[in-house]
Amino acid sequence: MIGKLKEDRVVAGKEAIEEIYETSYYGRPKNDNLILTLVEAAHLLYREKLEIEKEGESLGFEEYFKNASLLNPYFELKYIVYKDLRERGFYVQPGVADFRVYPRGGKPGKSSSRSYVYVHSERVALPLSVLLKNLESAGNVRKQLIIAVVDEESDITYYEVQESDPTGNMEQLYPSLQTPATMLEDRVIVWDGEASGKLYENGFYGKPLDQKRLQLSLVEGAFLLKNNIIEVTTRKDDNKLNFDEFCKRAAHIEPLFQRKYRVYEDLRTRKLVPKTGFKFGTHFRVYSEVKSASKIPHSEYLAHSIGTQHEFSLPVMSRAIRLANSVRKKMLFAIEADEIRHIDITRVKM
Amino acid sequence: MIGKLKEDRVVAGKEAIEEIYETSYYGRPKNDNLILTLVEAAHLLYREKLEIEKEGESLGFEEYFKNASLLNPYFELKYIVYKDLRERGFYVQPGVADFRVYPRGGKPGKSSSRSYVYVHSERVALPLSVLLKNLESAGNVRKQLIIAVVDEESDITYYEVQESDPTGNMEQLYPSLQTPATMLEDRVIVWDGEASGKLYENGFYGKPLDQKRLQLSLVEGAFLLKNNIIEVTTRKDDNKLNFDEFCKRAAHIEPLFQRKYRVYEDLRTRKLVPKTGFKFGTHFRVYSEVKSASKIPHSEYLAHSIGTQHEFSLPVMSRAIRLANSVRKKMLFAIEADEIRHIDITRVKM
Repeated sequence: MIGKLKEDRVVAGKEAIEEIYETSYYGRPKNDNLILTLVEAAHLLYREKLEIEKEGESLGFEEYFKNASLLNPYFELKYIVYKDLRERGFYVQPGVADFRVYPRGGKPGKSSSRSYVYVHSERVALPLSVLLKNLESAGNVRKQLIIAVVDEESDITYYEVQESDPTGNMEQLYPSLQTPATMLEDRVIVWDGEASGKLYENGFYGKPLDQKRLQLSLVEGAFLLKNNIIEVTTRKDDNKLNFDEFCKRAAHIEPLFQRKYRVYEDLRTRKLVPKTGFKFGTHFRVYSEVKSASKIPHSEYLAHSIGTQHEFSLPVMSRAIRLANSVRKKMLFAIEADEIRHIDITRVKM
Repeated sequence: MIGKLKEDRVVAGKEAIEEIYETSYYGRPKNDNLILTLVEAAHLLYREKLEIEKEGESLGFEEYFKNASLLNPYFELKYIVYKDLRERGFYVQPGVADFRVYPRGGKPGKSSSRSYVYVHSERVALPLSVLLKNLESAGNVRKQLIIAVVDEESDITYYEVQESDPTGNMEQLYPSLQTPATMLEDRVIVWDGEASGKLYENGFYGKPLDQKRLQLSLVEGAFLLKNNIIEVTTRKDDNKLNFDEFCKRAAHIEPLFQRKYRVYEDLRTRKLVPKTGFKFGTHFRVYSEVKSASKIPHSEYLAHSIGTQHEFSLPVMSRAIRLANSVRKKMLFAIEADEIRHIDITRVKM
């Protein structure tokens, strides 16, 4: 069987439709020809199911590979992923993203594809906007979105990306009380023993400094101040800070305070319990419900707040997701837009 | 017992030497007085072992805490760490770093301290230069260096920092051969089946593209080119690239190529086997020895190359170390200076 390299396609004759398309679904039949992408043709060449000619001369694998690599940006990466998916037994067709992948047992023309697979190099930053566009394309036709990241040694990691709508079970967002507190250098201290106990026990706010006093983080302090649970003064005088003044001071200490706070408030409003995720290198670890501070359950999510202009560094994303998954948590990226939007990215095996 | 707040110290009388210093080693005796740091005095006040006066007026805990917080930068953080160490049963004295900590069973005046503890907020970047200065101070007097990182909710994570001199057991750095290869977009392909097999089997270079061909990462390609194991051409013509030309092209694809390469070469020269650490979000995972590519052992280190001007973001450092430790690997930071220097940072329990 012979295919001819024409621009960025390989075109094979009528007999290829029967021998290649109808048996293993490479290419798309068109006017008595079979049109193959460069990647499909490379895989057939490797499998010795096809010879490829350019201007009448037969190309060896090495020659064809160099040619294709010049014609198609990231040809090698796409070939590596295509080959991997094929060898795992999936039928693969080109698509809006790089590939459409059929479910096990499914075939082009017989069933619909299940996933959109988007191929990306670990070296190249992935803009959130591109990710969201792909997620929308896939969502519109109810496909699963998969990002296939190829590392510098050509190992592939597959990530599934999904919209998420996390909700918890905390019916009471905070205890009903009002108590004074002091904003110190970068944290807030509640001095009253009873109030400290209630805030810690009913809502898992802060961390005890000792038996009587409670330390709150800046986001916790801001949230409780906004809801009139604490009254905050500084170390220097007795003037009470309002919410905006508090946030302004907090933003001075932590430049991304506003973004973190918006996500904190969103998560609390979703009846979840966010606490610092420092030990996991993320903004928050998130519990569905904490009935008592003396019996802390497993936290279900790690959440990291990002802006709409965010670009994912793939090694950093890889580390975040790997760490989250290693402690059985979902990794959420919370996008700070007019409404906070949550994206769940998980490593998957194909 | 009464102590007087004088500038940034609390001074107690002669009887305190006997009652406080000689029983529990708070403060330093000087001319019939006991001189306490603000942190030591706060802990004695909390424990109700000391009353503190300022200009003749007794201060409550809240008042004293606010005063001390204004006098001493990061007073709260230091207090939190001091209290934690004391409650774990250690004797603690002020030192060149924030604290000197005595070994269990050790006491000031009786034995020498074991660790220097340096307190740091998770919010503040930690310059490598500061870390190295502390490491040197501790090393000069043979103390262990501990960094106590306090997160925004006042949880403490202790890290031990050590110089490291990693070495492996690969007696042969690469197989003896010479073979052509092509630099594609961001990787290098070896086309010869026999050479591919030897490079993969004897040295664990690259990853097979298929049974005949081998893909090398850019650092692997550069190292093998420098040592005349491969000859590299581009896709466009047959001109051979020399090492400098190769590095220039690689640096265009990966801006930090030079830094990564220097660490790669250092690790290989130390008879170790570095491979990409992408899945762990670091530059390299490192094996002591790979006898055969068909039987890959556990990798012992993750290594990340950094420049001398590096500043550690503590949440990022925390994530890197936690992930490394969770897969039983040591986390090395390889500093690119005239000589590559390795620093091992590990989470420890005090």
